[in-house]
Amino acid sequence: MAASYRRRAMDGPATFSLFVRALPPDRGFLVACGLEDCVRYLEGLAVGDDDLEAFAAVGLDAATVDSLAGLRFSGEVWAVPEGRIVYADEPLLEVTAPIAEAQLAETALLNQLTFQTAVASKAARCRLAAGEAGLVDFAFRRTHGVEAAMAVARATAIVGFSATSNVAAAQRFGLRASGTMAHSYVEAFTSEVEAFRAFATDNPESATLLVDTYDVARGVQAAIEVILELGLGEQAAIRIDSGDLGTLAVEARKLLDGAGLTSTRIFASGALDEFAIAELCRAGAPIDAFGVGTKMGTSEDAPSLESVYKLVAYDGRPVMKLSAGKATAPGAKQIFRGPDGDVVGLREEPTPAGSEPVLEPVMRDGVRLSAPEPLERIRSRFDADLVALPEEARRLRGPISRSVHLSTAATNLAKSVQSHLARRRETV
Amino acid sequence: MAASYRRRAMDGPATFSLFVRALPPDRGFLVACGLEDCVRYLEGLAVGDDDLEAFAAVGLDAATVDSLAGLRFSGEVWAVPEGRIVYADEPLLEVTAPIAEAQLAETALLNQLTFQTAVASKAARCRLAAGEAGLVDFAFRRTHGVEAAMAVARATAIVGFSATSNVAAAQRFGLRASGTMAHSYVEAFTSEVEAFRAFATDNPESATLLVDTYDVARGVQAAIEVILELGLGEQAAIRIDSGDLGTLAVEARKLLDGAGLTSTRIFASGALDEFAIAELCRAGAPIDAFGVGTKMGTSEDAPSLESVYKLVAYDGRPVMKLSAGKATAPGAKQIFRGPDGDVVGLREEPTPAGSEPVLEPVMRDGVRLSAPEPLERIRSRFDADLVALPEEARRLRGPISRSVHLSTAATNLAKSVQSHLARRRETV
Repeated sequence: MAASYRRRAMDGPATFSLFVRALPPDRGFLVACGLEDCVRYLEGLAVGDDDLEAFAAVGLDAATVDSLAGLRFSGEVWAVPEGRIVYADEPLLEVTAPIAEAQLAETALLNQLTFQTAVASKAARCRLAAGEAGLVDFAFRRTHGVEAAMAVARATAIVGFSATSNVAAAQRFGLRASGTMAHSYVEAFTSEVEAFRAFATDNPESATLLVDTYDVARGVQAAIEVILELGLGEQAAIRIDSGDLGTLAVEARKLLDGAGLTSTRIFASGALDEFAIAELCRAGAPIDAFGVGTKMGTSEDAPSLESVYKLVAYDGRPVMKLSAGKATAPGAKQIFRGPDGDVVGLREEPTPAGSEPVLEPVMRDGVRLSAPEPLERIRSRFDADLVALPEEARRLRGPISRSVHLSTAATNLAKSVQSHLARRRETV
Repeated sequence: MAASYRRRAMDGPATFSLFVRALPPDRGFLVACGLEDCVRYLEGLAVGDDDLEAFAAVGLDAATVDSLAGLRFSGEVWAVPEGRIVYADEPLLEVTAPIAEAQLAETALLNQLTFQTAVASKAARCRLAAGEAGLVDFAFRRTHGVEAAMAVARATAIVGFSATSNVAAAQRFGLRASGTMAHSYVEAFTSEVEAFRAFATDNPESATLLVDTYDVARGVQAAIEVILELGLGEQAAIRIDSGDLGTLAVEARKLLDGAGLTSTRIFASGALDEFAIAELCRAGAPIDAFGVGTKMGTSEDAPSLESVYKLVAYDGRPVMKLSAGKATAPGAKQIFRGPDGDVVGLREEPTPAGSEPVLEPVMRDGVRLSAPEPLERIRSRFDADLVALPEEARRLRGPISRSVHLSTAATNLAKSVQSHLARRRETV
């Protein structure tokens, strides 16, 4: 497509709008995530000699290959800042650029924003479920690749996880690295006490002892023995990774308290998601922190979102498609967030009194307008939006998303384009 | 953990077994995939000076950091070759190495094998559903990152997809790149006929015209006009991406045939998975090829597998954990595949008459034993296993996996380790 545009000198500016059509059943909101990777991608989007060779190698003909020479991204981008809460039908990002450039970027932009927003939204629900308990990202072993694991660690930090087991991500993003032992560590020693003693000696600052390799009650006793022996307490924790976590945590708490270790924390993990965490919290399980892995890191119940990247204007004229159930509203957009909900209007409309525009300009002439944001700032932005999130959108089961309306101007534009298309069709 | 082992000079050989505990509900088999990336990872697994700096930067203490200096993978690996069909409780890969090395590799090995096996298995079910129809990988836009998209393209090629829309993957793996136009392409022109004429002129060898931007019947008429005008036929195809694909395909076929374009193919896409494909095929929809994206590329109904990496032997003694519902059988294993099903035995057992061992040695002393395999060979291996796959394991809904038994020797070893652990516990 890009080559076809270039061969025909179709270089009029096109605006594409990237948005999510409908939320999955158990999602009342989305957390925008992935923009930084999109900006970095667009900054580097240029067709070089090696690309031309690769295109030829996969069988593109010479005219097609030649037409792509020299292409680089020179456009403008507006986007929802990372960490903001958004809803269905709201643009996460809009690109305006010569149509070939905007077209080439489609796949990469959809890929990063869809996946990272899906995971950030799932992780945010874990945060809602956990209340005051801590959360640690344990997802690396079952994410869809290493790149995904890095993005998951970053997304969890944005929504308030306190640490990650992914040391590389901790280093790259300045997060707290946190790990515990595996069952194999216990098995490599001839007894649990020996294993715990070794681990706690080597990691006195963060001795989280895994107590369920053989039998939880005996494991907790072994942990108590070592924690008392080494004079740990607050620094120490036990981890339960199997069985009925709630009941086992109550029993473990009793044993720890009985030994005077009231400040030793209890850590739980094992196939957790927001539903399991909420259930444990509701039952009053004395769990201080949760390790959340696979179900969060793959957004298991909704591993993708119905995201699309739609042409809304080309060469000065608004456009729309009419496909069954998939009609799109024309024109560059803005989200106006007001006290009564969100209005999706045309970007050129004035901001209604009492509302704030949510999309911000992030690139112009192919150049980013500001440096990558510190995660702290993104996290604060999420925290602020979370406070304002309506009760019904927070629900874990059957949430109700905040209402989003099209502005009058946007609605009128859609109607006028639709009737123009209908008239043109009749004259064919 | 690795540092702790190294500090204590615990360098006895450990064997870890990587297997999937139970299959997701709608999976009757798995397709082993991801081994090549594991071997490449292990070959490169070495702690360098930059790693030591990174460890220090995330807060590891000096003794821990120092203990890891000079570590590199020096072990042995046995694995199921890529493309083979396997079941729950069968080792996909076993590592034997000094325990710190084997431990450090855990996350990366689980990550690649779990994700790639999950996707290959999902894609294989699409192949089963599609019968003689063609399949094209359309997943890139919604996979979990770019690395994931590349792995998905490779996995789909292994199980018989004929092409991918991912040009970079096509180039890297020697696949056929195949794309069609987007709705935006149609919208960028002032009429469908104009858009189709431009695209077919620029891509005469593979002119797949998207007919549902406004209205399918009119779109097909426009396609027919252009295909006749340019004298295309076999090379041309139409694509339907929305609405009731089966009904629309029947109508489109009639229109095409009526115009004499009996060899123009019909391509369908849009939220397809093995269930939707099977439904369309069962209804006799005249669809020649399916573009399969998000649901396959994220393995939507089972985006992960219950994979584990368990210590089964350490320093000459077999080990096992007893955690509730998660007990593991000790000892290095082999899968013996015979006419009556699979037996998981000890690696040292002789192969039963009439059976073949499935795991093969792939690395020794940290060095790979053979060059990366051509995808053709992996695909042939899958094809052969697919032919032999029992009917009940092929079912899309409620499949029954092939039975897998533990050999007598493996069972006896597990019993003996268990009673040893019980005796040791009583004496504590």
